[in-house]
Amino acid sequence: LSANFRRCGSVVVTGASRGLGLQMVDSLASGGFAPARIIATSRDPSRAQVTPHHTPEPQQLQALTASVYDQCVEQVGCLLGDAGLNCLINNAGVNVVADFQSVTAEQMMQNFHTNAVAPLMVTKAFLPLLKTAASINTPSDPRIMGIQRAAVINVTSLLGSVELNWGERANNFKWYPYRTSKAALNMVSRCMAVDLEPDGILCMAIHPGWVRTDMGGAQAPLSPEESISAVLSVIGGLTEKDHGSFLNFTGEQLPW
Amino acid sequence: LSANFRRCGSVVVTGASRGLGLQMVDSLASGGFAPARIIATSRDPSRAQVTPHHTPEPQQLQALTASVYDQCVEQVGCLLGDAGLNCLINNAGVNVVADFQSVTAEQMMQNFHTNAVAPLMVTKAFLPLLKTAASINTPSDPRIMGIQRAAVINVTSLLGSVELNWGERANNFKWYPYRTSKAALNMVSRCMAVDLEPDGILCMAIHPGWVRTDMGGAQAPLSPEESISAVLSVIGGLTEKDHGSFLNFTGEQLPW
Repeated sequence: LSANFRRCGSVVVTGASRGLGLQMVDSLASGGFAPARIIATSRDPSRAQVTPHHTPEPQQLQALTASVYDQCVEQVGCLLGDAGLNCLINNAGVNVVADFQSVTAEQMMQNFHTNAVAPLMVTKAFLPLLKTAASINTPSDPRIMGIQRAAVINVTSLLGSVELNWGERANNFKWYPYRTSKAALNMVSRCMAVDLEPDGILCMAIHPGWVRTDMGGAQAPLSPEESISAVLSVIGGLTEKDHGSFLNFTGEQLPW
Repeated sequence: LSANFRRCGSVVVTGASRGLGLQMVDSLASGGFAPARIIATSRDPSRAQVTPHHTPEPQQLQALTASVYDQCVEQVGCLLGDAGLNCLINNAGVNVVADFQSVTAEQMMQNFHTNAVAPLMVTKAFLPLLKTAASINTPSDPRIMGIQRAAVINVTSLLGSVELNWGERANNFKWYPYRTSKAALNMVSRCMAVDLEPDGILCMAIHPGWVRTDMGGAQAPLSPEESISAVLSVIGGLTEKDHGSFLNFTGEQLPW
């Protein structure tokens, strides 16, 4: 990956047991911004396929259960010591597919909880570790931001763009719970950007593209490798100019 | 009010026991697009201050309990007979104020349920009555839309705009549950617009301004009368061009 990347000591990836999260861990372990520590979390570690064979240095990769945030944060804090956490990737998410006729209140609530509320609660829980990393790595100009300091990356979707939910795009994906949860996540991301800025913690939302995972299905145009290679390239190059943004995996800005 | 208004047989207002909902019922009963029937719903009718003294014709105004949607729809269906429902105003909403430090998952879920999920479920429940009105009043050009046919109006907020949640505006209102619920409602509104279009049912979202209600507080610049006079003026003038839109009470388009 590009020499553009800033030094990043540690990365936490949520939802790392499969799909894009697993690919992120794989790609990070095989060179993507070369963090000293990669911590892969998932609700159920028995499902995680993350193993030390992914990485040349067995100490680099650690899998943790994230069902209880505070416990998980305590474990991560022990692993990282005084260095804090440089990059939290809120990747965990589900897709509850339901159209206008079939959608229930329970489906709406469930998808909202996993895709919008959980990233907020996870970020709140990791805040002390992110603050530590940001303050240790304060540059001479404190406005400077990036994964060399501290960053929160929210994996969102183009389908969470209210503006783009019109015409052909809308008719192809009438997924009320998923679209609504991702629009909500975009607002959470923007709210958090406002509140994390004084601590020098970058916060943004990224669309990974339509990818051949369990969620994306077989007809998706991108392989997980292609998507995550592009996503890590964008994340590695983030600066204070990207704070509060909604970017495509190609690096282009998307409308809310 | 303006002669611009299209003929509208019936209006349902949710959350009509106080604040903007109560003002809507008052203003409708005293002349705002002069509907033959106004149906004021609230979760708890004992709190409703809606009484027939608001209207010159006692038959015009009816207060109903909306805690069980299907029962409420059945009662409204009986009241309206074969004419169906011309205008559903999803006004009911709450403001759960919590910042990044204090916000809990429960607060996020509660506000999302009331402000985003309930309008979706209410609209689904009223769909048969809206379809009836839209088909009875089909114009020669079936693309024509407005309250003379059938319309769903979602009362949202400027604070639900992800784009405008930046800079000074963001710092003044760090209300995670409320902002997120209104961004989610905006997505729900846009999703429903796509699905209601084939039936000729207009769907849009409107920001009523910052109003001196229990929710808005005493320092808000607008009186309920001023806000609702402007809101009803916008609703009365809606056409197919406004389908799927997010409008200010002044009629201007707002960014998502």
